[in-house]
Amino acid sequence: MFSKNSFGSIFRITTFGESHGVALGVVIDGCPAGMTLDLDLIRRELERRRPGQSTLVSPRREKDEFEIVSGLFEGKTTGMPLTVLVRNEDVKSKDYSAIESLFRPGHADFSYLSKYGFRDHRGGGRSSARETIGRVIGGAVAKQILKTQGIEVVGGVTQVGTVKAQTCDFSVVEQNDVRSVDLARAPLMIEEIERARKDRDSVGGIVEVQATGVPAGLGEPVFEKLDASIAGAMMSIPAVKGVEIGTGFAGSSMRGSEMNDEMGPEGFLSNNHGGILGGISSGNPVVVRLAIKPTSSLPKEQQTVDVNFQSQSIVTKGRHDPCVAIRAVPIAEAMMALVLLDAWLLQLSERAAQENMKSSLLSASHLEYPKKV
Amino acid sequence: MFSKNSFGSIFRITTFGESHGVALGVVIDGCPAGMTLDLDLIRRELERRRPGQSTLVSPRREKDEFEIVSGLFEGKTTGMPLTVLVRNEDVKSKDYSAIESLFRPGHADFSYLSKYGFRDHRGGGRSSARETIGRVIGGAVAKQILKTQGIEVVGGVTQVGTVKAQTCDFSVVEQNDVRSVDLARAPLMIEEIERARKDRDSVGGIVEVQATGVPAGLGEPVFEKLDASIAGAMMSIPAVKGVEIGTGFAGSSMRGSEMNDEMGPEGFLSNNHGGILGGISSGNPVVVRLAIKPTSSLPKEQQTVDVNFQSQSIVTKGRHDPCVAIRAVPIAEAMMALVLLDAWLLQLSERAAQENMKSSLLSASHLEYPKKV
Amino acid sequence: MFSKNSFGSIFRITTFGESHGVALGVVIDGCPAGMTLDLDLIRRELERRRPGQSTLVSPRREKDEFEIVSGLFEGKTTGMPLTVLVRNEDVKSKDYSAIESLFRPGHADFSYLSKYGFRDHRGGGRSSARETIGRVIGGAVAKQILKTQGIEVVGGVTQVGTVKAQTCDFSVVEQNDVRSVDLARAPLMIEEIERARKDRDSVGGIVEVQATGVPAGLGEPVFEKLDASIAGAMMSIPAVKGVEIGTGFAGSSMRGSEMNDEMGPEGFLSNNHGGILGGISSGNPVVVRLAIKPTSSLPKEQQTVDVNFQSQSIVTKGRHDPCVAIRAVPIAEAMMALVLLDAWLLQLSERAAQENMKSSLLSASHLEYPKKV
Amino acid sequence: MFSKNSFGSIFRITTFGESHGVALGVVIDGCPAGMTLDLDLIRRELERRRPGQSTLVSPRREKDEFEIVSGLFEGKTTGMPLTVLVRNEDVKSKDYSAIESLFRPGHADFSYLSKYGFRDHRGGGRSSARETIGRVIGGAVAKQILKTQGIEVVGGVTQVGTVKAQTCDFSVVEQNDVRSVDLARAPLMIEEIERARKDRDSVGGIVEVQATGVPAGLGEPVFEKLDASIAGAMMSIPAVKGVEIGTGFAGSSMRGSEMNDEMGPEGFLSNNHGGILGGISSGNPVVVRLAIKPTSSLPKEQQTVDVNFQSQSIVTKGRHDPCVAIRAVPIAEAMMALVLLDAWLLQLSERAAQENMKSSLLSASHLEYPKKV
Repeated sequence: MFSKNSFGSIFRITTFGESHGVALGVVIDGCPAGMTLDLDLIRRELERRRPGQSTLVSPRREKDEFEIVSGLFEGKTTGMPLTVLVRNEDVKSKDYSAIESLFRPGHADFSYLSKYGFRDHRGGGRSSARETIGRVIGGAVAKQILKTQGIEVVGGVTQVGTVKAQTCDFSVVEQNDVRSVDLARAPLMIEEIERARKDRDSVGGIVEVQATGVPAGLGEPVFEKLDASIAGAMMSIPAVKGVEIGTGFAGSSMRGSEMNDEMGPEGFLSNNHGGILGGISSGNPVVVRLAIKPTSSLPKEQQTVDVNFQSQSIVTKGRHDPCVAIRAVPIAEAMMALVLLDAWLLQLSERAAQENMKSSLLSASHLEYPKKV
Repeated sequence: MFSKNSFGSIFRITTFGESHGVALGVVIDGCPAGMTLDLDLIRRELERRRPGQSTLVSPRREKDEFEIVSGLFEGKTTGMPLTVLVRNEDVKSKDYSAIESLFRPGHADFSYLSKYGFRDHRGGGRSSARETIGRVIGGAVAKQILKTQGIEVVGGVTQVGTVKAQTCDFSVVEQNDVRSVDLARAPLMIEEIERARKDRDSVGGIVEVQATGVPAGLGEPVFEKLDASIAGAMMSIPAVKGVEIGTGFAGSSMRGSEMNDEMGPEGFLSNNHGGILGGISSGNPVVVRLAIKPTSSLPKEQQTVDVNFQSQSIVTKGRHDPCVAIRAVPIAEAMMALVLLDAWLLQLSERAAQENMKSSLLSASHLEYPKKV
Repeated sequence: MFSKNSFGSIFRITTFGESHGVALGVVIDGCPAGMTLDLDLIRRELERRRPGQSTLVSPRREKDEFEIVSGLFEGKTTGMPLTVLVRNEDVKSKDYSAIESLFRPGHADFSYLSKYGFRDHRGGGRSSARETIGRVIGGAVAKQILKTQGIEVVGGVTQVGTVKAQTCDFSVVEQNDVRSVDLARAPLMIEEIERARKDRDSVGGIVEVQATGVPAGLGEPVFEKLDASIAGAMMSIPAVKGVEIGTGFAGSSMRGSEMNDEMGPEGFLSNNHGGILGGISSGNPVVVRLAIKPTSSLPKEQQTVDVNFQSQSIVTKGRHDPCVAIRAVPIAEAMMALVLLDAWLLQLSERAAQENMKSSLLSASHLEYPKKV
Repeated sequence: MFSKNSFGSIFRITTFGESHGVALGVVIDGCPAGMTLDLDLIRRELERRRPGQSTLVSPRREKDEFEIVSGLFEGKTTGMPLTVLVRNEDVKSKDYSAIESLFRPGHADFSYLSKYGFRDHRGGGRSSARETIGRVIGGAVAKQILKTQGIEVVGGVTQVGTVKAQTCDFSVVEQNDVRSVDLARAPLMIEEIERARKDRDSVGGIVEVQATGVPAGLGEPVFEKLDASIAGAMMSIPAVKGVEIGTGFAGSSMRGSEMNDEMGPEGFLSNNHGGILGGISSGNPVVVRLAIKPTSSLPKEQQTVDVNFQSQSIVTKGRHDPCVAIRAVPIAEAMMALVLLDAWLLQLSERAAQENMKSSLLSASHLEYPKKV
């Protein structure tokens, strides 16, 4: 709690901005100094998140060009807050005037008004998924750092509506418009979306994110377990209603002898645990899946009430994604990268402290543990 | 991050203690002053969490009697840290000496050693579920406060292995040994557990927790969304591998028109959203489900390695629950209560500030929003 | 710790930007929603902090015009992060190229390089007092809110070099170029500064800040005592080397019978305690004094070393204040306002919780305490 | 804010307990694993803080024996919370019944009641300096770790009432009952205290703490500057009303050319800056002085009011220190150790991250900076 718009501890992002305000952006605090910032990577990740990429996503036209206003000197990070701005361009606020006094079903209109006694009705204000621009920028910087350690974060869509992927290959994700991990199934997923759109409706989906190269030992033992941090991070993404690690919910109907991952001299013989045991990374790939609900905005008539609690019917116009799972992929990857980087930076301290203190660790017969980290 | 053993902001618990150490306990910081503490409620909740309640759970014998060592004066809270201790009694450390140099499958042995270069092998040390004693005590105090606001938190088991509840009635939970929300299905669930035990195995399950009476407006807008906080809290409970809110994963294959909860003059017409929209409570019951993996400790031979990465076989003896879902119920309720109380205390500040500032809110034509909070 | 560039809890600012970068600014998180933001107040406070106001301060020419890029809708705060940008204009980086490889005496050059292995030598980068722009903006918003509660924060200079004020009247502060609280002594203070300047030197000073209308009960009992928070806040201002509350250091040579403030039916009979007892505000004016060291940058030759630790002599050119105490006044007021507002918002939660819980406070014979807050 | 009873980030203590409650203690979170804990050091530091050491301090008899209830396994830290308890023994609550309804001058009675609407009148409850037991224990552990890095923290009394030390030698501090840094002046200081006691009065004093061996580079750049953290830490100690670094307040009347510490090939030629420049440690000794007010409790009649605001006279009996500066020494040292350790652990992360990332730091022509840390 008490990190309304900030995330992370050592590597900490604070995001700001609304869907139809002047600009969105992020302050990245705690980025190590002296790093040549990879601006192309930021550009690429923003491009993946951007609307208007295909007919499957929102037609809103935003170039999402960014400006770095602090923290960079001669192309390198200075250790000071890295602040990045993205100005809004295609802001059609009139689109939203009709719904100013209505609570859109599935949206945060009613709950925000209950909280603040106030509501920015222009495109949902900050409850819009456009809020995630800052996360993606922060995630791109995190990815760049993680890459130097051999840690890579990839993601893709494993389900759209009732169509499930039957194979999982992250390398094909950017080769199909629906970001499916199963290239063969992508056309069926696209059909599922087109069908929903034709019905003036929307569909949900499932996104999977994997991180490879994660050293064993990341995460904290109790309340900030690595999976707890990941779960909180993922559930904070708009439209996410469920998070699972490794076998997740399927594990509930398994036997322990089936679920437990046995070990051999080369390490774990399977990865039902999804790379995390007791809240600490095991060295295996970290695997998480997100349940994405169908887009709340849809051009079908629905029943609702106005702010005086009088019944009204509503049709949510505007430019919306019929399936937000597609654009959720880079956002989920960003959140994973942010969690892993922060956990890594914290673990560096623990490990470096032990190293530096060694002289005082009398009769320290430390077992030999993995070199990395 | 950086709350290794602490949870919450205004109402904040710090837990300590190991499975086979001297004592476990909790420091509760931020409990409002002047409250007559309900010691019976603490006792009752500890009793529900305690091992040895039936043949379905661990036979370890712990009375779990508690001592309050600070923060209480003449029966009332003082606003100072409330510290509660529970001493360990039935500590058979020799049970564990055999596994000192082995990594138990499904346990945190390897990941802890990777993190700390050190391991307390006695019953898993702090990675043992016995760690949750402090959570349950903190949760009991939170429940007492929430109750004064009409907020109640209940929980129960909705699935054991492959046996699913078909009805959901939380009032029957304490009437059956498996804490099933479906009394008729309880015998089948118990059979499922007995079958696993006979097979020297264990089973997983699903726990559902609901909070009723939660006012609209709790939660923060971005990273500390109410569902994000709940997800992090629940995933931090040992053995939890998945968390979902409302329709959760099932929503992924739904259409938007089906998922969206329409509204009428009396409020929401359904609760697919599980009481949270845009990360903020809607006034509807908050509904969360937890996937619990089968107990990692089981008396079946499994393959593993020792600390020198030599292959070994292992049989985890000791006194273990064949299905930890049963005892996870009070723990999950505690975490829910902690999240809700903290969010409520924070929202009180937002709301009270607005009230106190009113004179300066020029032309403040606030819409009339729910009185509560 | 771990708030490198953020300050506060419920009302939290994150500042960013460097002396010679693109822009500086602040993200203000936790501002109550629905408030008509007083842009003139922000402008006025920035104007007070701005260089170039008189011959006594730096001649750098910055208009310090601000742009609000998020958090405001139709002139009102939305409860979302309020982000404010100030672009740098008069950036003469060449001024600094000569000192690129030298450690300026009294500056952070050596310590920053030791910390980051990297240094932004343009005007000190973020170690420049120009960093405080974001604080002053955040402080202006805090002041606006505090004012609705009758809390006012004022400050002034009580000493310049060896010239001490003999009276203390905050209403004259903006009537003299040195912001003296003693109008009669202002000319002597100005002479002291001019004398130093003529000697190619600089002088230190003392700033006093007072907050009136502060209700009793603000602050936390142990580590976040109100005076501890104020001390940390004030010492974080560049050039501050000492902080004292009430009688401060003078109290060290007093007797208890002299120091203790007796009480009568109207309240405290004196204010040696400076408005804080046991870390909690007493309802009396909060009084703090800051020791400001003489400006480190001065056009006199001094001995130093270069980055290869070779002896060099240095003359710090550039556009500097001969006495930074003058411009420290609005910054110190801002920090005081930020601390008080955050403490107030937290206390609102404590008090509101007690009010809401009353039904459960059995036999609650609360003493009647001050209504406010 | 929001660390009511906790201090620090990576190395974090949470203290609890009241003057006349069951026990006091501390939860130390973030202590590196595998360290053989020096129990004698904890004992020694508690002994220094303990009342009853000489006729100059409170005659309350407390052995202050401690029990470690978690976090230690076979004499070594496990990385888990280290919890230490000290039970109260010499609790004469009746001493305090007479003042139950009075506000003692100089004490927190009125401000606590204003905050909480509730008051634990037994010896001041948690506002008693007995609260600092947990700090001293945490500080002892911090000192042990710092020592492995060559960092030592020492402290002593430099002024009692109007008697000032004229030399400063920390090695003589434990050789005289008043903990004077000037052995020759100790008798005069003792006289000053005896004189006050005879007058049924108390005196204030000044404590200086120095840390040597502190590597350059500790501290954060803006709000958590090392001196800001130290100032907040020191001001949180009961009875402290002022904090200064290096030349402190004396620097206010200095010229810049006098104040600035010049550098030569061996480093700084003087230490007016007290070891901190721009908020970051410089490698020089860190020097801080604390203004301690005279003990509020004194056996002289004073005017006050009762809780109904009726005038009353009061004589504070009980067992009090006539000069709390003496016992403040180990407490101030503890706070310094806690701040330094936490800053060191954080800097380890920054530095280790840079080391690990090196491959990606294209054209990284890092200047050679001090090896340590």
